[in-house]
Amino acid sequence: MRPVNIRRMTIPTTMTAIDPAAPGGPEVLTPVTRPVPQPGPDEVLVQVAAAGVNRPDVLQRLGLYPMPAGTPSIMGLEIAGTVVAVGEAVTRWRPGDAVCALVAGGGYAEYCVAPAGQCLPVPAGMAMVDAAGLPETWFTVWSNVMDRGHARPGETILIHGGTSGIGITALQLAQEIGLTAIVTCGSDEKCAAAAVHGAAHAINYKTQDFAAEVLAFTGGRGVDIVLDMVGGDYVPKNIACMADEGRHVSIAFQRGPTAEVNLGLVMRKRLVLTGSMLRPRPIAFKTAIAETLEGVIWPAFAAGRLAPVTDALFPLAEAADAHRRMEAGAHVGKIVLSVA
Amino acid sequence: MRPVNIRRMTIPTTMTAIDPAAPGGPEVLTPVTRPVPQPGPDEVLVQVAAAGVNRPDVLQRLGLYPMPAGTPSIMGLEIAGTVVAVGEAVTRWRPGDAVCALVAGGGYAEYCVAPAGQCLPVPAGMAMVDAAGLPETWFTVWSNVMDRGHARPGETILIHGGTSGIGITALQLAQEIGLTAIVTCGSDEKCAAAAVHGAAHAINYKTQDFAAEVLAFTGGRGVDIVLDMVGGDYVPKNIACMADEGRHVSIAFQRGPTAEVNLGLVMRKRLVLTGSMLRPRPIAFKTAIAETLEGVIWPAFAAGRLAPVTDALFPLAEAADAHRRMEAGAHVGKIVLSVA
Repeated sequence: MRPVNIRRMTIPTTMTAIDPAAPGGPEVLTPVTRPVPQPGPDEVLVQVAAAGVNRPDVLQRLGLYPMPAGTPSIMGLEIAGTVVAVGEAVTRWRPGDAVCALVAGGGYAEYCVAPAGQCLPVPAGMAMVDAAGLPETWFTVWSNVMDRGHARPGETILIHGGTSGIGITALQLAQEIGLTAIVTCGSDEKCAAAAVHGAAHAINYKTQDFAAEVLAFTGGRGVDIVLDMVGGDYVPKNIACMADEGRHVSIAFQRGPTAEVNLGLVMRKRLVLTGSMLRPRPIAFKTAIAETLEGVIWPAFAAGRLAPVTDALFPLAEAADAHRRMEAGAHVGKIVLSVA
Repeated sequence: MRPVNIRRMTIPTTMTAIDPAAPGGPEVLTPVTRPVPQPGPDEVLVQVAAAGVNRPDVLQRLGLYPMPAGTPSIMGLEIAGTVVAVGEAVTRWRPGDAVCALVAGGGYAEYCVAPAGQCLPVPAGMAMVDAAGLPETWFTVWSNVMDRGHARPGETILIHGGTSGIGITALQLAQEIGLTAIVTCGSDEKCAAAAVHGAAHAINYKTQDFAAEVLAFTGGRGVDIVLDMVGGDYVPKNIACMADEGRHVSIAFQRGPTAEVNLGLVMRKRLVLTGSMLRPRPIAFKTAIAETLEGVIWPAFAAGRLAPVTDALFPLAEAADAHRRMEAGAHVGKIVLSVA
């Protein structure tokens, strides 16, 4: 079960990582020294160039995220970097390959292991810091909008948080598959940014009633899909502006997990309410998404139809500031840690 | 647009029907005289032998049912009888045919028009009074359990009201397609009756915590499908005893339309909450269900694998007593009005 095919690269035994000893504020994200992990037979070891910061990281830091068993305590759900070792069963990747990967944890570090199936090539011409921000949102948005939400070309989608990492990715997916996207944002500036990134209609939820706006924009019909990370009191409002046969897909609940649902509307409009969590899913599931993304979405990056949207870059040692920026909520696109 | 092919049968111009002038208690269900309806080009006129009584009839009588536009004010959602006239576009049916039919209204009457596509033959050897109780529950259960709930052989289903008309039909469907059925009932006697009709496990909801019982019976796994007509505070209990990827299908909400949903559980278990109303759906939709039922389920009646379960029979003029029996809730199977 030892890694084989380690060539050319000298791998140290210890590394710098962000592995907080206890839950807390951003200040717990201090660099510490940890052993370099070793890849299992189906894994690769990546020398991390950059790691994406995601909202679940903030919940994990606060001790509020239900951690799947066996996940590393080192934070970080996505990375980009260079393969430096591969497990004995890995045939796709070789040392020297530039990859980005979805990982169950361990990304805020100089080295990180990733299941081979959860790695994707860094799209041609893309910087590592940009590629590091692709996996988490693309795996999440694809699996929820396409696989659970059954989005079809020509449909209309409501995306909350239109300028978040998830929001921008959902806008890009909408563009690629031909969905009309309506977004909500917390300021007029963010609404303008969302429009630049493809939103057909952007609603400032602080000054407008988003459900009424959605109904007005759709001529009373409503949307076919809601990608919801807000939960709580947004759910009845989402339901109010959904079309017949609409699908409501929950991926988070920033305003709380408890939602009041009117079953009469669910029945009358034949709605579907569903949702999922990406992190606890098996590697085979994530591998299948990776294969789909590489075939369907990655070519759009290579062709220049899509471009990554990186909001800000922080050194690994300043992960605390990266979290502060995410919690402040002023970012547009991805916040990334530069490691190498 | 006049009916053609009226042969052999003498059709009167007026008939007896139950067509309450105002909402109210069972006492409003008095016989009145109404014109015999005329079939449109795609409809048949049926001389009604018997009409099924359904819970939506009670809601309609109370003025609590949202009536789709254009539905007859005469009550009754299902009938069995003899075709006495057919519209000019009808090729499947001829005067003299024994049919049972799903209708949007008008069943509590001596004559009723039905869309030709919503008629099914009375299964060979079955009495009209038994056949009259088949359409509403079979169309409802099939479309919700199979089409919306995506039931697959080997799965487990939780059915509330296991001895209601819907409950018995859901038990029979479970038997035909190979589902393990768990039911809830309001008494030990009904639990015993549900077991006779195929329930693998029957829970007395008045003396037992049904969610805990379901989890115990399924070894902690939970059920794949819930067919729910209770709503309200049952929904969180249903969710608590659903398996990963479970589907919750709402067809009514006897304990209220407002349900509190834990989005965290929806996401963690990747649940689907959906539902539908049969009555407002287009004729083409109902026709497709009729064709499926005739092909898949009706042969089981002819073969004797399934038998209708008729609880009680009342003359049309005593429809009030039929409603009293339904509201008392002591019935097992279908309550039927004998018309001819």
